Amino acid sequence: MSIQADGRCDVVRDDCAPNVADFPLVAAGAGVKPTVVNVRGVSIGDGTFNLIAGPCAVESREQLLRIAEVAADSGAKFLRGGAFKPRTSPYSFQGMGIEGLRILAEAARQFDLRIVTEVKDCESLPDVAEVADVLQVGSRNMQNFSLLEAVGRQRKPVLLKRGMGARLVELFMAAEYIVAQGNPNVILCERGIRTFETMTRNTFDVGAIAMMKHWTHLPVVADPSHGIGIPWAVPAMARAAVVCGADAVMVEVHDDPSHALSDGQQALTPQAYRALARELNDLSRWACLRHEQGR
Amino acid sequence: MSIQADGRCDVVRDDCAPNVADFPLVAAGAGVKPTVVNVRGVSIGDGTFNLIAGPCAVESREQLLRIAEVAADSGAKFLRGGAFKPRTSPYSFQGMGIEGLRILAEAARQFDLRIVTEVKDCESLPDVAEVADVLQVGSRNMQNFSLLEAVGRQRKPVLLKRGMGARLVELFMAAEYIVAQGNPNVILCERGIRTFETMTRNTFDVGAIAMMKHWTHLPVVADPSHGIGIPWAVPAMARAAVVCGADAVMVEVHDDPSHALSDGQQALTPQAYRALARELNDLSRWACLRHEQGR
Amino acid sequence: MSIQADGRCDVVRDDCAPNVADFPLVAAGAGVKPTVVNVRGVSIGDGTFNLIAGPCAVESREQLLRIAEVAADSGAKFLRGGAFKPRTSPYSFQGMGIEGLRILAEAARQFDLRIVTEVKDCESLPDVAEVADVLQVGSRNMQNFSLLEAVGRQRKPVLLKRGMGARLVELFMAAEYIVAQGNPNVILCERGIRTFETMTRNTFDVGAIAMMKHWTHLPVVADPSHGIGIPWAVPAMARAAVVCGADAVMVEVHDDPSHALSDGQQALTPQAYRALARELNDLSRWACLRHEQGR
Amino acid sequence: MSIQADGRCDVVRDDCAPNVADFPLVAAGAGVKPTVVNVRGVSIGDGTFNLIAGPCAVESREQLLRIAEVAADSGAKFLRGGAFKPRTSPYSFQGMGIEGLRILAEAARQFDLRIVTEVKDCESLPDVAEVADVLQVGSRNMQNFSLLEAVGRQRKPVLLKRGMGARLVELFMAAEYIVAQGNPNVILCERGIRTFETMTRNTFDVGAIAMMKHWTHLPVVADPSHGIGIPWAVPAMARAAVVCGADAVMVEVHDDPSHALSDGQQALTPQAYRALARELNDLSRWACLRHEQGR
Repeated sequence: MSIQADGRCDVVRDDCAPNVADFPLVAAGAGVKPTVVNVRGVSIGDGTFNLIAGPCAVESREQLLRIAEVAADSGAKFLRGGAFKPRTSPYSFQGMGIEGLRILAEAARQFDLRIVTEVKDCESLPDVAEVADVLQVGSRNMQNFSLLEAVGRQRKPVLLKRGMGARLVELFMAAEYIVAQGNPNVILCERGIRTFETMTRNTFDVGAIAMMKHWTHLPVVADPSHGIGIPWAVPAMARAAVVCGADAVMVEVHDDPSHALSDGQQALTPQAYRALARELNDLSRWACLRHEQGR
Repeated sequence: MSIQADGRCDVVRDDCAPNVADFPLVAAGAGVKPTVVNVRGVSIGDGTFNLIAGPCAVESREQLLRIAEVAADSGAKFLRGGAFKPRTSPYSFQGMGIEGLRILAEAARQFDLRIVTEVKDCESLPDVAEVADVLQVGSRNMQNFSLLEAVGRQRKPVLLKRGMGARLVELFMAAEYIVAQGNPNVILCERGIRTFETMTRNTFDVGAIAMMKHWTHLPVVADPSHGIGIPWAVPAMARAAVVCGADAVMVEVHDDPSHALSDGQQALTPQAYRALARELNDLSRWACLRHEQGR
Repeated sequence: MSIQADGRCDVVRDDCAPNVADFPLVAAGAGVKPTVVNVRGVSIGDGTFNLIAGPCAVESREQLLRIAEVAADSGAKFLRGGAFKPRTSPYSFQGMGIEGLRILAEAARQFDLRIVTEVKDCESLPDVAEVADVLQVGSRNMQNFSLLEAVGRQRKPVLLKRGMGARLVELFMAAEYIVAQGNPNVILCERGIRTFETMTRNTFDVGAIAMMKHWTHLPVVADPSHGIGIPWAVPAMARAAVVCGADAVMVEVHDDPSHALSDGQQALTPQAYRALARELNDLSRWACLRHEQGR
Repeated sequence: MSIQADGRCDVVRDDCAPNVADFPLVAAGAGVKPTVVNVRGVSIGDGTFNLIAGPCAVESREQLLRIAEVAADSGAKFLRGGAFKPRTSPYSFQGMGIEGLRILAEAARQFDLRIVTEVKDCESLPDVAEVADVLQVGSRNMQNFSLLEAVGRQRKPVLLKRGMGARLVELFMAAEYIVAQGNPNVILCERGIRTFETMTRNTFDVGAIAMMKHWTHLPVVADPSHGIGIPWAVPAMARAAVVCGADAVMVEVHDDPSHALSDGQQALTPQAYRALARELNDLSRWACLRHEQGR
């Protein structure tokens, strides 16, 4: 910030732009093609729109199969669900573990879905990577550099969630850790940041989606469920993500939110999810159309 | 936050909901109709979409007339522009003052635009209110309670900007100050909040737009220019605002951004503004259509 | 942030230092003497330590006289107390106004105390300035530039509180507004900033005290009562302020905290206040002694 | 926040207090004795004051031996130094690894110091635990729950640093993870939080020290070097920590800060460190004396 001789400009933001030399492998640039991540035949980052749906955590075989069916019926090609859950309290439900992975695999087979599930440490990585189609690295692990390197040394695509207090350049350097190890299939995920606001769980940062698309060549997924944390507000955030260029939207769906073992409060019911899926597909076509007219 | 006997739920957000008794006059509720603010024949809050465009500050008669013409040509019914500018530094350009108001009035007459301009203190309120169609109370004055009461004691509509570190309930109570004095014509404005991010000027909080529409009956305007502060990212933020239910979008337009006396870095060129105006009108029809189908 | 050829240093903070040209009149520098503010014979900023004590708000003549006696008995030379109270809600107690000022004047006369009281707008400035020895500009008004200019045009010393989301350079420029109008008697006040923490009312920023003393020549007052907001933690914060170089500490004292009309929760009882006063006087002598040995 | 019938109190903070049932094993309470961690004959948490000093990272045998001698000469019983360094960028210096541990061990033997060094993942835990006397879990790993459990399953004391955007209750629950696995020897560490301020590296939160001492029975260490990030301001922060009850202060010392491979900017020179050590020992006696008089 500086005062110029003629009294102009009390905010000079020439230095807003990140230094792309800090994240050379993931930075967008002239002649750099967007990364398209192929997940068992489904592409993320090629201009099409994708839905990722499912419960916060796998709770039982019956629960997951019911929700997976809802997800698939509404056009989602990806099923989300945690088997290993990082939790703030050691006394909270920590996930079904290996059994949860087995259930995910069954649901994926039955409904032709690709699995997005969290890997929370290097120890469980081999087990998780055997089942997962996309390995999610959670917000609290965005700067768990050993885990980043470990997922960088294998080949399954990685969904890297932004830390809740992270600057974007830190996210980009976290992605750089993965790619530098040899795995180019990284997908960035905006899931809301911590702010002073108490009326929402987090503050969903759509500007971050625009920045990720602009400064890197990686695909971007939005997670409005964690981003806002209130079911009736999830659809608005999801729409915002689509018109800001998100390649996919990931939403939590639960058919009995009030009895969910984790984060039930923010999950959509199957009915609300179906309505949102229709709406987002329609809106993504509008966005895509505009984009093509703009060329 | 609490741990339940069965280990469920590490985030319980039953208390996320604000206490509407804290802002009884502006709270939405059963049987409460949305406020529609009529500004010389143009309604804000009735389901139609409006554009507010213009420079950050009035800099000269020629500048304002040129930009006002651009604004009007692209369908804006409102002209923004500051004559009294609150500035972080006492040495920054403080606005043209009374002369700026005179120029605003001329431009408004010539292009049939309604004027949105900032009132920064009680002293200048009579002068500003004589010319303005909508009185803007800026972010730094959101909790200037004497000013809130003063604009509440007159009848011109008030555009109340959210403070850059304010919680939404504080914004709602600030609006309550105005309405409690007898002026029901309050419009809330999301203009970005301060966060840790350095890649953008502010973090544009679309979730706030959804919350304002849900918890109050007041119209909501989005200001993506301040919200993100980067011209190429303003259109994405504006689209996000529209699909989250904003009644109007206010954008800064300057035909020579690099020589602007205030905040030029974030202004759209006339060309970029025209493209955005077309896009937002189209998108708002899509949003409106969906809304009607949903009834 | 940048990566150097040899891989060193992921945080380069050469630009941490503020640009002192942004606040030339208040910046410390070679040959610039510290400002000593003389308040009816009592100096702030000359290396001695001062206490400012009193209730958040003047509530009645009896209340104020009782607390003023406690304050004076324990060595405070300044009495704080609000007559005009800016409040988040229009329905909260707004202070006793002119009647409150009259009571303050009486208490000050009776116990030979200097009055520190808030001025919340330009309208009431003449009335407040007639009674106050030090005019407090509150956190929410730190960037109420018209008020800053108004207190700059008169001669009573000004206690300028840091905004709860303000960067220090913004505080320094706010002080610059006052001094640029001709009033050099500005005292900076750290009163805590808003953070994510919910266990305390604010986060008391002792680092800010060190920065204020280092980068400006103005005296610095600490307000641990607002800073932490919990009575049992106020003494620790007050001690921290003293060892970081604060010229004075301002504490809220109430003899019936649970019935206070404003912020009673954070006030010290007279007994706790007396113990703190003794402790701080002792500690300030320790700090002063060290300082002199260091010369 | 609520408005009462009589207009009192716009901030009610009855719920400021954390729910101690969320961290039962580390919560303070009636009849619960403070935890005293014994580190090879030196106690932390018994009311005495300790210094932990050393470079950010082990850079060479010569460097570490020189600095270790300085540390020991001034009364530190603990030597800090990182061998495995988590870094924001994959291209920054990542520490000397096993070789660094070997050097730490030699320095510790030679100067009778106890080693505090970071463990950044479960993989390197056995190696680090073989050499370290205290295992540091860094800010970015505060919610790396697998690592917390791993250090909980072994017996070396753990220094748990607060995450830079963490709420204190989250820190307390992170400590609970460790203790719940069977390791009671946990030391909490305040190292500054991320705020909007740009003039300092972090905002050193002395209030957090007071809260940690009040709500848990664990010893507390302050890290003013990371906390403020500016060498000339480290002593003030260290003093503040002592008068707020910190059991130990950890400072970075480097004899050639401008050539440090990591965080050199915030390190004290040996000369500055020696002066600070004298001052803190003196101040801690003052604090201790006051404490005993208060009984």
